[in-house]
Amino acid sequence: MVFRVAVIGAGPSGLTSIKACLDEGLEPTCFESSDDMGGLWKFKEVSEPNRASIYRSLTINIWKEMMCYSDFPIPADYPNYMHHSKILKYFRMYAEHFKLLEHIRFQTSVKKVTQRPDFSRTGQWEVVTENKDGLEERHIFEAVICCSGHFNYPNLPLKDFPGIETFEGHYFHSWDYKGPEDMHGKRVVVIGIGNSGGDIAVEGSRVAEQVYLSTRSGAWVIRQVSDNGEPVDRFNSRFVHVLFKVLPMSFLNWLGEKKLNAMYDHAMYGLKPKHRLFSQIPVINDDLPFKILSGSVLIKPNIREIRGSTVVFDDGSAVENVDTIVFATGYNYDFPYLPNNAMYKSGHRVGLYKHVFPPNLEHPTLAIVGFIHSDGAIMPQAEMQARFVARVFAGHKKLPANQAMIKAVEKDTKQIEKSYVVSKLTPLQVDFVEYMDDLAKDIGVRPSLLWLLFTDFPLFKRVFWGPVTAYQYRLMGPGKWIGARKAIFTQLDRHHFPKFLLLHIVWILF
Amino acid sequence: MVFRVAVIGAGPSGLTSIKACLDEGLEPTCFESSDDMGGLWKFKEVSEPNRASIYRSLTINIWKEMMCYSDFPIPADYPNYMHHSKILKYFRMYAEHFKLLEHIRFQTSVKKVTQRPDFSRTGQWEVVTENKDGLEERHIFEAVICCSGHFNYPNLPLKDFPGIETFEGHYFHSWDYKGPEDMHGKRVVVIGIGNSGGDIAVEGSRVAEQVYLSTRSGAWVIRQVSDNGEPVDRFNSRFVHVLFKVLPMSFLNWLGEKKLNAMYDHAMYGLKPKHRLFSQIPVINDDLPFKILSGSVLIKPNIREIRGSTVVFDDGSAVENVDTIVFATGYNYDFPYLPNNAMYKSGHRVGLYKHVFPPNLEHPTLAIVGFIHSDGAIMPQAEMQARFVARVFAGHKKLPANQAMIKAVEKDTKQIEKSYVVSKLTPLQVDFVEYMDDLAKDIGVRPSLLWLLFTDFPLFKRVFWGPVTAYQYRLMGPGKWIGARKAIFTQLDRHHFPKFLLLHIVWILF
Repeated sequence: MVFRVAVIGAGPSGLTSIKACLDEGLEPTCFESSDDMGGLWKFKEVSEPNRASIYRSLTINIWKEMMCYSDFPIPADYPNYMHHSKILKYFRMYAEHFKLLEHIRFQTSVKKVTQRPDFSRTGQWEVVTENKDGLEERHIFEAVICCSGHFNYPNLPLKDFPGIETFEGHYFHSWDYKGPEDMHGKRVVVIGIGNSGGDIAVEGSRVAEQVYLSTRSGAWVIRQVSDNGEPVDRFNSRFVHVLFKVLPMSFLNWLGEKKLNAMYDHAMYGLKPKHRLFSQIPVINDDLPFKILSGSVLIKPNIREIRGSTVVFDDGSAVENVDTIVFATGYNYDFPYLPNNAMYKSGHRVGLYKHVFPPNLEHPTLAIVGFIHSDGAIMPQAEMQARFVARVFAGHKKLPANQAMIKAVEKDTKQIEKSYVVSKLTPLQVDFVEYMDDLAKDIGVRPSLLWLLFTDFPLFKRVFWGPVTAYQYRLMGPGKWIGARKAIFTQLDRHHFPKFLLLHIVWILF
Repeated sequence: MVFRVAVIGAGPSGLTSIKACLDEGLEPTCFESSDDMGGLWKFKEVSEPNRASIYRSLTINIWKEMMCYSDFPIPADYPNYMHHSKILKYFRMYAEHFKLLEHIRFQTSVKKVTQRPDFSRTGQWEVVTENKDGLEERHIFEAVICCSGHFNYPNLPLKDFPGIETFEGHYFHSWDYKGPEDMHGKRVVVIGIGNSGGDIAVEGSRVAEQVYLSTRSGAWVIRQVSDNGEPVDRFNSRFVHVLFKVLPMSFLNWLGEKKLNAMYDHAMYGLKPKHRLFSQIPVINDDLPFKILSGSVLIKPNIREIRGSTVVFDDGSAVENVDTIVFATGYNYDFPYLPNNAMYKSGHRVGLYKHVFPPNLEHPTLAIVGFIHSDGAIMPQAEMQARFVARVFAGHKKLPANQAMIKAVEKDTKQIEKSYVVSKLTPLQVDFVEYMDDLAKDIGVRPSLLWLLFTDFPLFKRVFWGPVTAYQYRLMGPGKWIGARKAIFTQLDRHHFPKFLLLHIVWILF
C-alpha cells in the first residue's frame, strides 16, 4: 500500500522530512506557499505576512559541521559560519542530491488540515490547499508532517509599553528589519537582547547617532570565535556532555560565568542577567562588547513609558528625540491550519510527545517537525525528528498509548520548567545532545560508545572527545550512511583555514 | 622680549603646541589651512588634497584615559574608545578651556618657511602664508613648530602591481574611503592589513559579495576588548614596562604570541606574519576574526598581477570579476614648506633629535611635533614633545651641540632598525613609555618612583601598577598640575560602565 505523507513547508525541516519519507519508502508531497525552498533562510527584500523574515546581513550562529544534515556535509570551501545566501545554496545542493524537488509543489498554501470522517479507523487526513491562482484542492493523506516553522508571527506587545501611541517616531518589529539603511544619524532604541536584538543594535550602531539596547533581564553573551579562534560549538562534545551530567549545575554555572566574565565582565558591561548561565540559551554576538566599550550601543533597562519622542526607562533615565524603536520581542507560534483538537497544551508550550507527536490522537499520523529550541541547529534536529516520524509512519516504531504519551509530555514540561527560564515566548528549550540521543535511541541509531571503544578506537576518540556532529547518527542502525565514519574523520579538516582557502581557489578556477 | 612662535596646523599636535607655548610665556600663532581644528580627526565627506582623511565610522583605538592630554581628562560620560565626532568635541573643550582659539588663524596655509638672512645670529624664520582669498603674508618668528601631520600624502605604489593599468574596475587609496556604500554586492580586494586595511575590509564585508584582504607579510591582530572586557591599553603599566626591560625579548614574544593565538590561531586564520609580535606595532581590530571565520573576509597573499578584472595572487590563486581594489598602502610624509637644508635624513626617516629637533641647524628654533609612531596615542606624546620644545625655546633647556645631536639621531635610527621592522612607510616606531619618560626626564617632569614609594604609597601603587596615563607627567616639575594626583586616582572610575551610564543619563537630563 502506498503511504502518502503531506509535508507542509519546504524549509530546513520540510526538506529533510521529504527525504526521511523517501528513505522509508513513503510517498511525500510537500506544499510550499512561496516560490522557493529554504523557509526562514530565503531572504526577501520585503517581509511577507505570515512568513518568517531575516535581515540582509544574517549569518547563522552554528558552526557548519554542527548545522549540516547528517549524511550531507557542507563543502569544505564553505565558511564555518555561513551567510544566509550560502545556507540557501547548501539547501539547493541537498535537494538536488537527494532528488527532493520533484516532491515539492511550490506556491501552494495549506489552508486546512482535518481528520477524515473515518479517522478512527484509517488515521487519514484531508488537506485543503490553494495554489497561486486561488484554486483550491482537496487531498487525502495517510499522514501529515507540519514544518511550517515558528518564526512567522511577530510578537508585538504594545500594551506593555505605556504611551507607545504617543510615540512621534517610527516603530517596527525586528521581523520587518532588513538593514540599517534608515538609521543613519538617528537615535534608535532596540527592545530585547535576543539574537535579533543584539544583531540589530550592533548593525544600527554603525550608522545611527546612538543606539540604546533595552533589556528587561540582561543576557549572557557568548562569542562564536572561541578559544584559539575555534568555532565555539566545536567544543560541544560528548565528554563535555558527560561533565554536565556528573558535575553539580551550580559549579558548572560558576565555571561558565567565570569564563564569560573573563572575556568581558557582564556586570561592568551592564549585561549581567538575573538568571544563571545554563538556565537559558545564551545570546551569540561577537561584536556587541566592543560596541558597548566604544559607547555606540548603550545598555538600558526596561522601558517604563514613552512620551512623544522621549523614552523613559525603569531606572528613571530618559532619552529624548528618539527616532526609531525596534521591537526585537520575539515570535508567537501558531499552526492556523490545524484543528484545535489536534493540539495538546502543556504549560506554555504545545505538548508534543518527544517534541514531535500530539499525544492525544487516536493514530500517530500527525507530526510537527522543527518546533524546537536548543543549543544546536535546527537542521540536524529536524532531520532526527523526521527520521523518527518516518520510522513511526512506516510502522517500524510504535508509540506508547495516549495516556503514557501525555504523562511523558507533562514530565517533559516540568523538566523544562525546572531546568530553564521559560515564558510564553520561549516555551521550549532542550539540550541538543540529550535530545538527539534520545530520539536516536528510539530509532536505533544512537552510536554505541562501548562498542566503538573496543572495535574502532580511533572513531571512538572522535565521537567521544570531538564535537557531536550529526554524522554520528549515521554510523549504525536504520539509515546508516557509509560515508559517516569518513565525515567524522574529516570534519576538522573542513574547517581548517588554509585548506579552505586553497579549495576555495580551486573552486573559483575550475 | 616677546618670543613669537609659528605653529603650523591646528590638529592634536598643533593645539597642544599652542598651549605649551602659552604655558612658557611664548607667543604662539597657529596657522591652520582648513576652517576648523582637529586635523585628521575632523571628518569631511569628501577628502581634500594634501590633508589627512578619515572614514565615517572611525573610532580611535586608544583608550580614552591613555589618549587624553595630561592636564585635561576626558569626561567620565565619554566612551572608552571614542568615535571621531567625540574626539573633535574633546578638542573643542580643550581649546576653549585653555583659550587656544584666539591664537589660531583659520583658512591660512603656510606656503614657505625659510631661515632669515640673519639666521646665524637670530635663529629667526620667515613664514609665508596665504589666506583663503589668495592673499600672501610674510611673518617673522623667533621659532617654528611644524604640526602638519604625516597622513597627508597617500602612498599609491601602482608600479608594484603589474597590470593595474588594465584593471576594469575602480581602484582608490584608503585615503579616499568614506564608507562601504559603493561596495554593495561587489567583489572587493583590499591591499594592506594595517589598521585602515583591516577596518575597510571588515566594514566592506558587511555589504560586499566578497572581500579579499591581501597582505604581503601578515600581521599580529589584537582586540581592544581585552581580559575581563577591559580596554587593552589599560594594561600598559610601568610594571609591564619593567618586565619588558628585564625579560628576554624572545620570551616576551613567545608569551605574547601565545596569548594572541589563544584568542585565535594566527596561522589557521592565515594572518601569521613573518615578524615577531613586538617587532612591529600590532594591528588593532576586534571584528576581523569573526569576519574571517564566517568567510566574508578571505585572507590572501600579495598580488602578483592584475589582468582586466582578474586579480592573481602570489600563491597562484586568482579572483575573477573584481569590482573594486582599495589600496590601504599607507602614507608618505612630507613637509613641502620647509627648506631642504633643514631636514636631516637618517635611514628611512627624517633624522630628528629626540624625534623633535632637526640636529643640523645652528639654532634650535625649528621643531617637528607629532611625527611619531608608537603603541600610544599621539595626543600625550605630541603634548610631551611640545612641552619639551617650549622649554627649549624659552631657554630653560639647552640642546647638545650639532655633532652630538647627529650622533644621537644615528644611534636612535640604529636602535629602531634593530628593534622593529622598518620600511619607507614605517620609518618610526618607538616605545610609548620609554619615549615619554625620556622626554619627561629632560623636562624634569618624570615621576620619581622612589620618592613616591616613601612619601605617597597609594599614588606609587597606581603609578607603578596602573596604566601609564599622561597625568603622571603633571605630578611634579615644570607644568605641575594640582589635579594630576586626583586624575590618577579616578582614572579607573571614568571607565567604569554603570557609573558611566548614570553620568550619561545625568548629562542628558540636565
